[in-house]
Amino acid sequence: MTTAPMFSKVALIGFGLIGGSIARGARMQGLAGEIVATARSAATRARVAELGVVDRVVETNAEAVKDADLVILCIPVGACGEAAQEIAHNLKPGAIVSDVGSVKAAVVRAMAEHLPSTVHFVPAHPVAGTENSGPDSGFAELFINRWCILTPPDGTDADATEKLAAFWRGLGANVEIMTPEHHDLVLAVTSHLPHLIAYTIVGTAEELEGVTRSEVLKFSAGGFRDFTRIAASDPTMWRDVFLNNKDAVLEMLGEFQEDLSKLTRAIRRGDGEGLFEHFSRTRTIRRGILDIGQDEAAPDFGRKQPQLAKKAAE
Amino acid sequence: MTTAPMFSKVALIGFGLIGGSIARGARMQGLAGEIVATARSAATRARVAELGVVDRVVETNAEAVKDADLVILCIPVGACGEAAQEIAHNLKPGAIVSDVGSVKAAVVRAMAEHLPSTVHFVPAHPVAGTENSGPDSGFAELFINRWCILTPPDGTDADATEKLAAFWRGLGANVEIMTPEHHDLVLAVTSHLPHLIAYTIVGTAEELEGVTRSEVLKFSAGGFRDFTRIAASDPTMWRDVFLNNKDAVLEMLGEFQEDLSKLTRAIRRGDGEGLFEHFSRTRTIRRGILDIGQDEAAPDFGRKQPQLAKKAAE
Repeated sequence: MTTAPMFSKVALIGFGLIGGSIARGARMQGLAGEIVATARSAATRARVAELGVVDRVVETNAEAVKDADLVILCIPVGACGEAAQEIAHNLKPGAIVSDVGSVKAAVVRAMAEHLPSTVHFVPAHPVAGTENSGPDSGFAELFINRWCILTPPDGTDADATEKLAAFWRGLGANVEIMTPEHHDLVLAVTSHLPHLIAYTIVGTAEELEGVTRSEVLKFSAGGFRDFTRIAASDPTMWRDVFLNNKDAVLEMLGEFQEDLSKLTRAIRRGDGEGLFEHFSRTRTIRRGILDIGQDEAAPDFGRKQPQLAKKAAE
Repeated sequence: MTTAPMFSKVALIGFGLIGGSIARGARMQGLAGEIVATARSAATRARVAELGVVDRVVETNAEAVKDADLVILCIPVGACGEAAQEIAHNLKPGAIVSDVGSVKAAVVRAMAEHLPSTVHFVPAHPVAGTENSGPDSGFAELFINRWCILTPPDGTDADATEKLAAFWRGLGANVEIMTPEHHDLVLAVTSHLPHLIAYTIVGTAEELEGVTRSEVLKFSAGGFRDFTRIAASDPTMWRDVFLNNKDAVLEMLGEFQEDLSKLTRAIRRGDGEGLFEHFSRTRTIRRGILDIGQDEAAPDFGRKQPQLAKKAAE
């Protein structure tokens, strides 16, 4: 018995880590009859064709979306408005149009004004990723056990939302629905602030007087190296995130600054009790994340550990 | 042919992650004729005996060091002065006395005043660890390809320093020698500041209004979860680090604050170019760390990735 795929034709606009992972996962799970992809640069399009993970690579956004039942913009949030404008006149009536942006309110505003009322606009954000980017970086398993947040505007067709939710569940994700504004506040703390802090501290370490760059690299296993992974994320994507979620990020930065001042004061005053109390409290958050399976329980994220050769028998 | 072990008797005072890893590594590599361990709590001592990874467990620090050729304090830096006092009169002349503290200047001062001139005091800091602690958390491979920093005071016997260096190389580590003051500055940026920042941001996320704890946990894969690992480190150890390396940590915090203000201003003003330039620069630091083998090149630290079941054959 042949089951019809969830969507006859899926169009992916942009083919970085997220677009490439959707393509590979959707193909593996048979979620699409046909997957068509496009990308802005000719080099990326050539590489996608070479990889052979989609059915067709086309040159323009407008061409990609023709006859597609599901269109997903997998590009930096700053580029979504223009892309929506480019595809608007070629969208099939009844199609679902979505995105994967890490910011929702600004992107929804930028896209919605261009989209015709004949399509269903269901914005989405899969909370998953690695520090890599580009057409080679994606993999089918990226979304497994991760959350995909949908932020359908008021009045969105419930069936369209459910259909997109089913697609994400097919890729292994859990789905949650919230408003764009609430999404932006939640992600400001679970993603945007951590990235900003990591970008900051890695920059700080690079410019120090008295400590060489070589020392920073050599002794990075003391904690610093963890931050460098996040600070190696795609610069264009993250520039757009901060420009488009300014208010929530600045609000979280304010909270962070207050807490940092409090801990700084405790250090300056030698308040061991205050430090101990704080450091004990944060431990429980880690446990909570492990309990719900949102991180690796193995020590050190399960980083590979080289082996010591056993001493030769005497 | 039997090779004599490097040290006839090694005494480990304290048996957490580091002490337990030294014991396991030294035994596997045959670096010690006998390993004697002790710990402050009776429960830990009982567990160490049960684990069977050392030759003997004794009740007091003074008893542990009798006849030992190498004594290593593997306890929080705040406890090292008192422990040095406790063992001073039982140390064998010619013995090497060392520690593993993450802070050096303050610890060296606290220990040196108690140690007799008949022993060789060679302070050490293996820059390695995981977020776990306690007698079960150690493993023989912890130090492989990591750096162990020795900070011998002026006038230390060169043979003693070399003998301790050889011991650490036997555990798989690379050895570097520097002054305690320089160590404390380098580690303030590669280890202490990152821990303080992680402890801060995890605390911030826990206390927010408008975002629930459950949301923070669920959507932590956006970057936040990386910080929770570090913020799950041993509270006693880290309290002591900040109390004992106050000046260098406050200096690094000042640098960090300046850089954070600069990035905050760029966000507030919508300076995309400035953000992009900064985010591109930090990427190269990550590459430097991978190039010298101080982190896992696999995406996401090589975290285990669950598999998608292949769609059933049609």
